[in-house]
Amino acid sequence: MTEHPEFAPLATVRLAVDCMGGDHGPAVTLPACRAFLDKHPQAELVLVGTAAALAQAALPRSRSVVASEVVTMDDPVEVALRRKRDSSLRVAIAQLKAGDGGAAAADACVSAGNTGALMAVARYLLKTVEGIDRPAIATVMPNARDGYTTVLDLGANVDCSPEHLLQFAVMGSALVSAVDGKEDPSVGLLNIGEEAIKGSETIKRAGELLRAAAASGQLAFHGNVEGNDIYKGTVDIVVCDGFVGNVLLKTSEGLASMLTEFIRQEFTRSALARLSGLAALGALRRFKRRVDPRRYNGAALLGLRGLVFKSHGSADAYAFEMALTRAYDAARNRLLDRVHDRIDATLAALPAAALPAAAPATAA
Amino acid sequence: MTEHPEFAPLATVRLAVDCMGGDHGPAVTLPACRAFLDKHPQAELVLVGTAAALAQAALPRSRSVVASEVVTMDDPVEVALRRKRDSSLRVAIAQLKAGDGGAAAADACVSAGNTGALMAVARYLLKTVEGIDRPAIATVMPNARDGYTTVLDLGANVDCSPEHLLQFAVMGSALVSAVDGKEDPSVGLLNIGEEAIKGSETIKRAGELLRAAAASGQLAFHGNVEGNDIYKGTVDIVVCDGFVGNVLLKTSEGLASMLTEFIRQEFTRSALARLSGLAALGALRRFKRRVDPRRYNGAALLGLRGLVFKSHGSADAYAFEMALTRAYDAARNRLLDRVHDRIDATLAALPAAALPAAAPATAA
Repeated sequence: MTEHPEFAPLATVRLAVDCMGGDHGPAVTLPACRAFLDKHPQAELVLVGTAAALAQAALPRSRSVVASEVVTMDDPVEVALRRKRDSSLRVAIAQLKAGDGGAAAADACVSAGNTGALMAVARYLLKTVEGIDRPAIATVMPNARDGYTTVLDLGANVDCSPEHLLQFAVMGSALVSAVDGKEDPSVGLLNIGEEAIKGSETIKRAGELLRAAAASGQLAFHGNVEGNDIYKGTVDIVVCDGFVGNVLLKTSEGLASMLTEFIRQEFTRSALARLSGLAALGALRRFKRRVDPRRYNGAALLGLRGLVFKSHGSADAYAFEMALTRAYDAARNRLLDRVHDRIDATLAALPAAALPAAAPATAA
Repeated sequence: MTEHPEFAPLATVRLAVDCMGGDHGPAVTLPACRAFLDKHPQAELVLVGTAAALAQAALPRSRSVVASEVVTMDDPVEVALRRKRDSSLRVAIAQLKAGDGGAAAADACVSAGNTGALMAVARYLLKTVEGIDRPAIATVMPNARDGYTTVLDLGANVDCSPEHLLQFAVMGSALVSAVDGKEDPSVGLLNIGEEAIKGSETIKRAGELLRAAAASGQLAFHGNVEGNDIYKGTVDIVVCDGFVGNVLLKTSEGLASMLTEFIRQEFTRSALARLSGLAALGALRRFKRRVDPRRYNGAALLGLRGLVFKSHGSADAYAFEMALTRAYDAARNRLLDRVHDRIDATLAALPAAALPAAAPATAA
């Protein structure tokens, strides 16, 4: 672990909160904000919502910014982007932009609004970081080591080039170093086998770029990993394209909910089963707590000139508080500066031969 | 459901069994064969293995074919294909080829040998069916409706064209109709959203082909599905490319084994927890049986001019018996004829405009 005095933690962290987003809006976001503020004395909030919603707020260390519109969970991206220009989602993201005085109103933004709209508006308002072609969505999944594995991309990009996958690896490393304090987190490239010769041409080429970045000391590249390695905890970060990432996330959600339902059914099948379920309540509860998806709520939109975190739309107050905490940790440990720094260092260190990315780009 | 008298079940089904394949070889395959024969009076077996291994066999309704070599689980494809020309894996597959007398020695072949070798040798010896560009691997996964979902491809093809995905849908439909007796099983295209505009260009184009096939009455296309739909049981068949299929299978295995381990840990954490686990034993056992992956053992290699089934390498006797049963059901209900029939009908019924597949093929 190297010391990084240039990333000294922020003394005060200000989060902009889209209080209207998600399935439940202020009924969930405001209690979550209160619980979060209680636990984080160095945090301040910018609450963004309709005048009616914010009238009930009355939270400490917070100020309100009124927005007249709300992006619904079903609104197409175009509506969020072009029509609802005074939506809470948009105004919350706008808090990350430097004002006339030079400083931005907030260090990070959290919304439970719909993913497509959030990504599109964030990308439009904030733009991408120099050296990053496409933003990515990163989330964490629990693993068998009682830690968690960070996975990206989770749906922002359906077709990824090898260069995009390299950029995801760099951004993921910055995220884990900021949130977990691990300066050299290990990166795995999701593939259908461990051998370097496996996979599509894109994946093989991505492996070459990642090995080159590792050789120049910019990245701790472990090599190829397979789907089961996510839950084994083989590496800190798993990199894949957004199509694969979305499928593996949804498949996991589907399997977990089927298994949970099967357990419930088996413990309610008969009077005797119910009785045994009662006896097993402690163990079953500990199990449930351990894999509670709410604990892992809060996906990072990486690669933008501003920190945006996405909460699950169906989040309850506890889950939304977790998303706030994740955004707080990232902002406090200066994730944005770390991404800049790592991207610059990686691009500078990679031998020119390993980076033909510029060629197709100019040719296109 | 239409009657298909042309697919009258076979009176006798002969399976060729690679007795040497898998982690355990004859110690597992021979007891599995015995249990299988006991339950299937209309089955006959061709046992393929080394002379030493088969000397112990002595099974009813079986004959032995000696092979002098064994493909190990680590053997590269090239070794299985070019060097070990008298391997049990290869000789077992060769039983599917028509001999001088016109008839083949077996109707289907089952092996627990390594997937790459099995696919390569099967493809080399049997060739692909007319109208199929690439064979695919299909397996079933349990779903919340207490049924199962057939998923393909699971790793044979890393890059798939829209035409390949259409072919997978047709072959998957033939498989489900043969094994489950459902004449019009529903097909879902794995995507990152339900809307037809989602996904990569390949996926969108595959959706168009599938809709055209459905419009001509050749396929029951449900539309796009997401990862969680596999376990929800939304459709009978989920179609995806082999990269995505492999990742979702391995991810599911990883998650299931992590959750099982967490349950075990919670019920052994303390003396009290152990006691409650004892009380819960009935329900926990029923749960375990319900999601027992051994029950779903036996993946079909589809699109070849012969029926090959792949057992998990680590299968025990019960799991291997399940693979034998799956192969038996498929052969008995004439899966190969059904694949031929459906492929011909689909290609004939699709409007020419929907099939530009020929253009790139001739251009290439």
